[in-house]
Amino acid sequence: MEKCTITFQPAGKTVEVTRGTNLMEAARKAGVFLDAPCGGKGVCGKCKVKVKSGAHKHEYNSLLSPEEIEQGIRLACMTWVQDDMTVEILQIDVINDIMVEDITSGSKGKFIKKTVETLTSSGVKIVTKFEAVSLKLPKPTIDDNIPDFERVERELRQVLGCKNVKCFVEVLKKLPQALRRNNFEIRLFVSKNSDDCNIVSIAEKEKAGPLGLCADIGTTTVAACLADIQTGEIVASANSGNLQMQYGADVISRIIYSTKNSGLKKLQQAIAEGTLNQLINNMTSKLNIDKNDIIFSVFAGNTTMTHFLLGIPAENIRIEPYIPAFRHAPIFRAGDILLDINKNAPVFTLPNVASYVGGDIVAGVLASGIWNSDETILFMDLGTNGEIVLGNKEWMLTCACSAGPAFEGGEISCGMRAAIGAIDEVKINRYDLRPEIKVIGNVMPKGICGSGIIDAIAEMFLTGIIDMKGKLNTTIKSDRIRYNAHIGCSEYVIVFGDETESGRDITINEIDIDNFLRAKGAVYSGARTLLNNAGMTPEDIDKVIIAGGIGQNLDIENSIVIGLLPDIPHDKFDFVGNSSLAGAYACVISDEARKKAAEIADNMTYIELSADPLYMEEFISACFLPHTDTSLFPSLKDVMNL
Amino acid sequence: MEKCTITFQPAGKTVEVTRGTNLMEAARKAGVFLDAPCGGKGVCGKCKVKVKSGAHKHEYNSLLSPEEIEQGIRLACMTWVQDDMTVEILQIDVINDIMVEDITSGSKGKFIKKTVETLTSSGVKIVTKFEAVSLKLPKPTIDDNIPDFERVERELRQVLGCKNVKCFVEVLKKLPQALRRNNFEIRLFVSKNSDDCNIVSIAEKEKAGPLGLCADIGTTTVAACLADIQTGEIVASANSGNLQMQYGADVISRIIYSTKNSGLKKLQQAIAEGTLNQLINNMTSKLNIDKNDIIFSVFAGNTTMTHFLLGIPAENIRIEPYIPAFRHAPIFRAGDILLDINKNAPVFTLPNVASYVGGDIVAGVLASGIWNSDETILFMDLGTNGEIVLGNKEWMLTCACSAGPAFEGGEISCGMRAAIGAIDEVKINRYDLRPEIKVIGNVMPKGICGSGIIDAIAEMFLTGIIDMKGKLNTTIKSDRIRYNAHIGCSEYVIVFGDETESGRDITINEIDIDNFLRAKGAVYSGARTLLNNAGMTPEDIDKVIIAGGIGQNLDIENSIVIGLLPDIPHDKFDFVGNSSLAGAYACVISDEARKKAAEIADNMTYIELSADPLYMEEFISACFLPHTDTSLFPSLKDVMNL
Repeated sequence: MEKCTITFQPAGKTVEVTRGTNLMEAARKAGVFLDAPCGGKGVCGKCKVKVKSGAHKHEYNSLLSPEEIEQGIRLACMTWVQDDMTVEILQIDVINDIMVEDITSGSKGKFIKKTVETLTSSGVKIVTKFEAVSLKLPKPTIDDNIPDFERVERELRQVLGCKNVKCFVEVLKKLPQALRRNNFEIRLFVSKNSDDCNIVSIAEKEKAGPLGLCADIGTTTVAACLADIQTGEIVASANSGNLQMQYGADVISRIIYSTKNSGLKKLQQAIAEGTLNQLINNMTSKLNIDKNDIIFSVFAGNTTMTHFLLGIPAENIRIEPYIPAFRHAPIFRAGDILLDINKNAPVFTLPNVASYVGGDIVAGVLASGIWNSDETILFMDLGTNGEIVLGNKEWMLTCACSAGPAFEGGEISCGMRAAIGAIDEVKINRYDLRPEIKVIGNVMPKGICGSGIIDAIAEMFLTGIIDMKGKLNTTIKSDRIRYNAHIGCSEYVIVFGDETESGRDITINEIDIDNFLRAKGAVYSGARTLLNNAGMTPEDIDKVIIAGGIGQNLDIENSIVIGLLPDIPHDKFDFVGNSSLAGAYACVISDEARKKAAEIADNMTYIELSADPLYMEEFISACFLPHTDTSLFPSLKDVMNL
Repeated sequence: MEKCTITFQPAGKTVEVTRGTNLMEAARKAGVFLDAPCGGKGVCGKCKVKVKSGAHKHEYNSLLSPEEIEQGIRLACMTWVQDDMTVEILQIDVINDIMVEDITSGSKGKFIKKTVETLTSSGVKIVTKFEAVSLKLPKPTIDDNIPDFERVERELRQVLGCKNVKCFVEVLKKLPQALRRNNFEIRLFVSKNSDDCNIVSIAEKEKAGPLGLCADIGTTTVAACLADIQTGEIVASANSGNLQMQYGADVISRIIYSTKNSGLKKLQQAIAEGTLNQLINNMTSKLNIDKNDIIFSVFAGNTTMTHFLLGIPAENIRIEPYIPAFRHAPIFRAGDILLDINKNAPVFTLPNVASYVGGDIVAGVLASGIWNSDETILFMDLGTNGEIVLGNKEWMLTCACSAGPAFEGGEISCGMRAAIGAIDEVKINRYDLRPEIKVIGNVMPKGICGSGIIDAIAEMFLTGIIDMKGKLNTTIKSDRIRYNAHIGCSEYVIVFGDETESGRDITINEIDIDNFLRAKGAVYSGARTLLNNAGMTPEDIDKVIIAGGIGQNLDIENSIVIGLLPDIPHDKFDFVGNSSLAGAYACVISDEARKKAAEIADNMTYIELSADPLYMEEFISACFLPHTDTSLFPSLKDVMNL
């Protein structure tokens, strides 16, 4: 079989493939991961590449304009290699770009710290069964010749007062040499449970603390951090895209992909090896941490993400009567799920509530303290899809909105995750209609993330660029407002190509706005439905907590303007960032937090929106700016003459 | 690098190796395993092969006669490939020949049955925590939409009365499909422990029983069987050589090999993948058993074998103060040690007593009931080396004799394991000095096993062919008695080449006899030393139990004649065959038997022979036929005019 060499620019990655290989497949093999919301079916147009040289076969479709085809632009998923090729990646948002962030300071750090306070003040003890024990053993002699393991056992019984000692095979393998290397002084990480003590690991470094990995597995974004289990100190954190994006943007398309031949396995590998292990590598190599010292792990994700992480079939989630394989997954070991930490590290996954309300929401509820609150709280997690919880310490209702990935930049032509290069704030000058923008990392902009899109749409609405249906007013004279013949609708230019990283314009078009309105409509109507179910109105809400990947810089005023958030006093809103990660972190440093999470999952009442007779009407009304019923947004009267 | 193709006859196995590869290494790669007692150092001469064609380099040494060199005979370990070659294997005893045997009938079956009786009558309950449970679950509906795992959990709580249900990741992976495949009827193998129930496996077949694997891991021979854990029925059994033989005949040479680069890993692979997995394959494929239904495993081996099986460094066993890594190994999982059964099957290894008295002896003591006996029993396990236990329900002494592999045919020129083709009985006609033989499997003889060697030496002694030092009387006129110039000593021909499988003579020479006398001397003097330590004489022994790989057809009279067994009334002797396997079997079908085994290991007193001031003298006296002190063998007076 003939081999062809494919080079991907700008990364310069090269791969050898058989003639006839699909270019998307070749990219994966080269370690270049293309976001493909449609899962490679040639219908989303996200995987555009520019072929610089090399023969290839291509199936043309309407997603490419004649000009693009002329320029060598192709959909990777519809291109097949015929010869050596050089290909330029055009995608804005590179999934596997890892962003290292310090989540111990700033607003993120504040919420993490507050999580610990919230739990402590609610009577949850911040202590785990894991601990480090340093032993100084008597050296063996002819008279004291008990075996190595029994020698350690004898000492542990004395030091920890435990009766039964066991260990993993890897510990026993290392034990003889570890004892003799250091004159029978040894540092162990143990897990203690009343009479039983399990040696999980031999510490690789003299003063190493037992580390725990926690991660929020979002459909679009994955955020992880490493914490010292005993002290609670967060030693590293990082985030990146979820590499599963190459198999589809939303959970439904991924579930469909999972039912294909070895699809489930590929999805598991994409999250475990492709995403989490890369984040782990990144965090540990920088700080010279031995991965073997990571002896515990906690993951919060939506129900489907948790299934895929564990490699469990999720197909029944989308088939009536919508049955997940589990609510509370048993504790597995890291080695069972391909994770590159201590292979015996227990894996705790936050339990899910229902097929579409997962452990990430349970983690968020845990971290934000709704479960112990006297006040009635509306909790909104705005990531891919949107999940909502309404309640207090007496009761909690929850629902899932089919918002899709728009809040994380998905299904938006120039959308991207809230990563470096993303426009996260937009203000449009009332007079000349020119925007002022803020870019994460203060670099040349690459695209626009959720909070930026909200700003842009609100400002376009307030400046009259768009009407309440989201249609552009093309009678306005501005070089930024134009008709795009290729896509067949109008668009507004936020940044012209001469000021962007890729050299291409960053725009928002009517299709983008339409997608976004449906997303925000799904969330708003979801919140309304929960309130209806509780017999409440927005005025009864004491506090709104907003979490999720939509970005830290969400503007409340603009979110109300577009009708995403209910129109209540601004001081009732609180942003908590990634509350799912905060909850996972709490579960790493507290055994009781994990128990509490299990109770929360069992105690929440799930409302199936599609089964609610009023929901569809609510949804349609909410797909306007801000809503067909403007009386729901009284504060906007002055702002925009509603 | 240039590649050469090597073909091994008679098996016809072929392998491609780089020019310059050692021929022993090439054989291993081809799946042809050569017994190499010296571990490939060119000093034992066991790995002789005949090069039929092909250029090669060879390091000649005195182990090959000029005639052999002329005929193309080489030591594989001293030969390096230079071109394509065809090579004939000359070794008698092919390590990886698997012998399927029915151990449920005959004398073996009797002992297995007796083991169950012994334990039952000693109050040990024959019941385990494993059981099969068939569930018929209500199908999920919109109103009863709990997840699959919770649905099973709910039912198990009712059926088994357990509170906490957990499972392994493989179970959860299979669960959704397994439930839906069969209308929500499912058969599970669970392990139940008071309130906790762990689903170990989903039964692959409708009426499958949970199976347990038990094996005796001998230095030379490995015997295994599969039993239904619930009914106790033995469904299959088989044995073969221990593939570790290619790295050395005895534990010491293997320990040395284990310290070399990846030596430990190779030894573990040789026993787990090379030997046990082959036996498992053999047993399961014949009976169409699903390996996944094997959910428990128990292994009995000497201390070093158990370390290697688990992949644990054993090097400190041979360095003063002789410290094993463990006495009671924690329970690992089959997947941890490369075993091809249900990867979550717990692995229980019989605990060892000391560096040279292992779990096989503990298993033997458990099975034979010494630990609960009013009578004083001398228990002798005659396999590679020999271990002895003396005691009753009040006390037990044990020691290890450095007998080497002679009882299993090791270090005997025509020796082999008690497998098909082995001469296991020899009688020499007093008048014409011609032998009558019995061959295992009634085939052309290939070699001679332990019991055959004992017979041969005893008969040679009784017929005057050898004297009490084991030297041949070459003045006797017989075509069977001759001087072998190549090895520099005399030999006796048991079978001429025209009646053997290989076409070569089967002989016993003075070096063989010398090796065997040292082996039997080590055992006899070991027994004497235990008696001395207990302040006893042979007359105080109520019963002698003989176990081990020496062969089922051991002749008591002849064993006394050569001074291997003490001269006490014949009715006090009992043969139990592989008591280590019987003990392992007991541990598969009884939780209490495992606890009892742990107690036995802790309660035995180990006597270090090398530290006993009288031992060396005892040993030297015992290296004669039958002994320098003939008064110890009064019954032989009549037989041979002592």
